[in-house]
Amino acid sequence: MLTADYVLGLVDGEGSFAVHFNKSQRRRAKVEPRFCLKLRAEDRILLDELRDFFGCGQVYIQRDHRPNHSLCYRFEVSNRQELFEKIIPFFEQNPPRSPSKQRDFGFFRQVVILVRQDAHLTDAGLESMRQLAAQMHWGSLDALDTLVQWERGIGFK
Amino acid sequence: MLTADYVLGLVDGEGSFAVHFNKSQRRRAKVEPRFCLKLRAEDRILLDELRDFFGCGQVYIQRDHRPNHSLCYRFEVSNRQELFEKIIPFFEQNPPRSPSKQRDFGFFRQVVILVRQDAHLTDAGLESMRQLAAQMHWGSLDALDTLVQWERGIGFK
Repeated sequence: MLTADYVLGLVDGEGSFAVHFNKSQRRRAKVEPRFCLKLRAEDRILLDELRDFFGCGQVYIQRDHRPNHSLCYRFEVSNRQELFEKIIPFFEQNPPRSPSKQRDFGFFRQVVILVRQDAHLTDAGLESMRQLAAQMHWGSLDALDTLVQWERGIGFK
Repeated sequence: MLTADYVLGLVDGEGSFAVHFNKSQRRRAKVEPRFCLKLRAEDRILLDELRDFFGCGQVYIQRDHRPNHSLCYRFEVSNRQELFEKIIPFFEQNPPRSPSKQRDFGFFRQVVILVRQDAHLTDAGLESMRQLAAQMHWGSLDALDTLVQWERGIGFK
């Protein structure tokens, strides 16, 4: 079983607090907060352990068609109730140690709380979420990182 | 102060056990095992905390001239005595949880022990280290990762 300190270290290294905005009219949700962590396929077992640790979320394959990129999987929590009741409380009690993750989590937490209050149903509420999300780094060392590309919906077939 | 579990999580996410071979005749060492961990500049304080935690190593700036790559720093231990007396024992007592890091650490440990026994002073010893190093992933999700490029001596000005 993973410990809270181990999970914090792993999240500080590879975790991502992200907020995705849908432009498509077909999709129900206009704003989708997501907590993700990506690892290479060989380390997928750790993602299953994360799912067991948090008691929520799913493990997905992360397709990447760029050359020299290995097959990856990601652990993801996007269910709003699970984010509000499990992910947010965990990181409130166990704050990230890295300054960038502390900041990202702070903005992410505000967005999740706003969504919980249905603020995304008004234009003003949605705009305030966009402003919060714009200040986040999305947890990647690399602006061309696959997870960021995936979150931002670019570069994937 | 960081905990061992936190450090393990961070290393499973972002750490790198690497072995560098020098072709240059000017450099003294033919083989250089290195334990590294790279983070964006904003999170440099965590690298200082890692240095304090292990009681060895240095924090360096990690230059990267590629577009869309943020400034990074890395914590690095390359001193052989420190690797043998501090890094190897820590991960023997606290094995990485991710399969890829477990494997990399296993090969890295063998190389450090061989270097400690001066095996790198013979061609046969050096060749056995090359074979061990060839089986390592060097801890990166991405074969084009800056740290791997840096370790392999390609792509940097």
